[in-house]
Amino acid sequence: MTNLKNFQAIWRPKIDQQLQTDLIAISDDAEFAQMMCYAVLNGGKRLRPLLTLAVLSSFNVSVTPNLLKLATAVEWVHSYSLVHDDLPAMDNDLWRRGQPSVHAKFGESSAILVGDALLTGAFQVVSEANALAANVQKVSDEQVITIIRQLSRYAGANGMVIGQIHDMQNHGHQKSDVTYDWLLNDVYAPKTAALISYATDIGGKLSQEMASTLVHPKTQYDLYQFGYDFGLAFQIQDDIDDFDQDNDEAVDSLPHLVGMAAAKRTRNDLLADARQRLTNIAQREASFDRQLLDEFLDLIGESV
Amino acid sequence: MTNLKNFQAIWRPKIDQQLQTDLIAISDDAEFAQMMCYAVLNGGKRLRPLLTLAVLSSFNVSVTPNLLKLATAVEWVHSYSLVHDDLPAMDNDLWRRGQPSVHAKFGESSAILVGDALLTGAFQVVSEANALAANVQKVSDEQVITIIRQLSRYAGANGMVIGQIHDMQNHGHQKSDVTYDWLLNDVYAPKTAALISYATDIGGKLSQEMASTLVHPKTQYDLYQFGYDFGLAFQIQDDIDDFDQDNDEAVDSLPHLVGMAAAKRTRNDLLADARQRLTNIAQREASFDRQLLDEFLDLIGESV
Repeated sequence: MTNLKNFQAIWRPKIDQQLQTDLIAISDDAEFAQMMCYAVLNGGKRLRPLLTLAVLSSFNVSVTPNLLKLATAVEWVHSYSLVHDDLPAMDNDLWRRGQPSVHAKFGESSAILVGDALLTGAFQVVSEANALAANVQKVSDEQVITIIRQLSRYAGANGMVIGQIHDMQNHGHQKSDVTYDWLLNDVYAPKTAALISYATDIGGKLSQEMASTLVHPKTQYDLYQFGYDFGLAFQIQDDIDDFDQDNDEAVDSLPHLVGMAAAKRTRNDLLADARQRLTNIAQREASFDRQLLDEFLDLIGESV
Repeated sequence: MTNLKNFQAIWRPKIDQQLQTDLIAISDDAEFAQMMCYAVLNGGKRLRPLLTLAVLSSFNVSVTPNLLKLATAVEWVHSYSLVHDDLPAMDNDLWRRGQPSVHAKFGESSAILVGDALLTGAFQVVSEANALAANVQKVSDEQVITIIRQLSRYAGANGMVIGQIHDMQNHGHQKSDVTYDWLLNDVYAPKTAALISYATDIGGKLSQEMASTLVHPKTQYDLYQFGYDFGLAFQIQDDIDDFDQDNDEAVDSLPHLVGMAAAKRTRNDLLADARQRLTNIAQREASFDRQLLDEFLDLIGESV
């Protein structure tokens, strides 16, 4: 078993347990709580919380209950975005991970409100994470506010939301002047890379605060950029895998725009840059073990 | 000119200016920023931010730039809720304050995303408010986190969101067992009173922190309850005013359920309780001037 497989086997169930506990606690209405659970606990890979925990683990920081809870907030945001993206007025997807999407199962108005409640709940989760720090080090209030600011920035009008606006312009050949730079910087970056770079970014910030073993300021930037490169490569891989489906749906994805070979080159360049970030960090930080994050990069590409 | 009219004349333009500044700053996309501005800057009364500022003023706390910004975050949440409530899948309102609603003007998908961005942005506004505290007292980090927690609770799955779920059940006579208690506690309280009590609640918390003139713990509860009573009375008045329209739309509002006279009695009882809260506070807190908050109560009822 690889490090990553082992890591996933340990932490994915714990992430799911934390999500379930908080989802049930946040609503007194059992029926509504069940809708929220349906939207979130449907077999996702938990890539974003796992990345935060992986960064902590790479710096040998132990994942205390408050850190676990903090790391799961991004999954509330990711889940809300899937529920809203699936709506009839948006991508109109009736299926999500092999099951009826939230609006297909519970109706459109409930899906809008489930998404709203998940987005709102993400900030409640962050603001209440330290309640689980009875016998462990608390995350400082200053850091909690920084995390809330980062989450709202990466998710909001300059982040995921504008990414979805642009992604929809990219459906049905509505936009005639789609360029390589526009696709990468104005669609993929805000829609996908933003939340993934948030996950590695706060992993770095929390490692610095909790362990004080991460010293060089440039390391923070490398961790953010690792997530950004990984996020873009992840999205390009998704488009490579969905090439035929996007063709049917008239979506101008990168492989359609520049050809499959060029899209793979871009993906590989991004993965190479992400690996270089890990090299940079390893050269500076004595406490850093890069192996787990290297294996995240192995998830993408030909070897999968 | 009454105290309140004077207060509104001073602070409503400042609230609007703060909202506009932050709405434009939060989005690099001019077209999307314009949609957000359309949703928010359309002539609202700014009741909720004004209530927070009125509580501060009642305790003679000066409204510094960071406090003004903090007070406006609730208006982002209120505005998002109107945009989403108006959607075709929800109340399907094509008009809002005499202008086309956001989805009528910009399309349904844009309206969903404008709402999402406003909700997300509210938390960014709170997390960044102290950036405006260069030469004035900062709000403590602990207090900022408390405000974020309260805002997410009152807006989320146990607050406004579940209020809207219940309100929709109350359309078209879908629910056969509508009771007085259910309407007040499960519809009006979370849908309307929650955010209004949030506004008075944080007004009290901020007064306590910034001026240290507010000493008795029960005063905090009275301020919260003042907002709660006021919010319920405000909603009942709205239903009294919209009686004919609700009749047409088959909404079981309080006047339909118990009759107009009984609905007015409930409203008056709530206003009387709210006035009693102000009496309680005035008896305890030497620095408290109740006149402005009394005039908020005068906004509701026969005298309007």
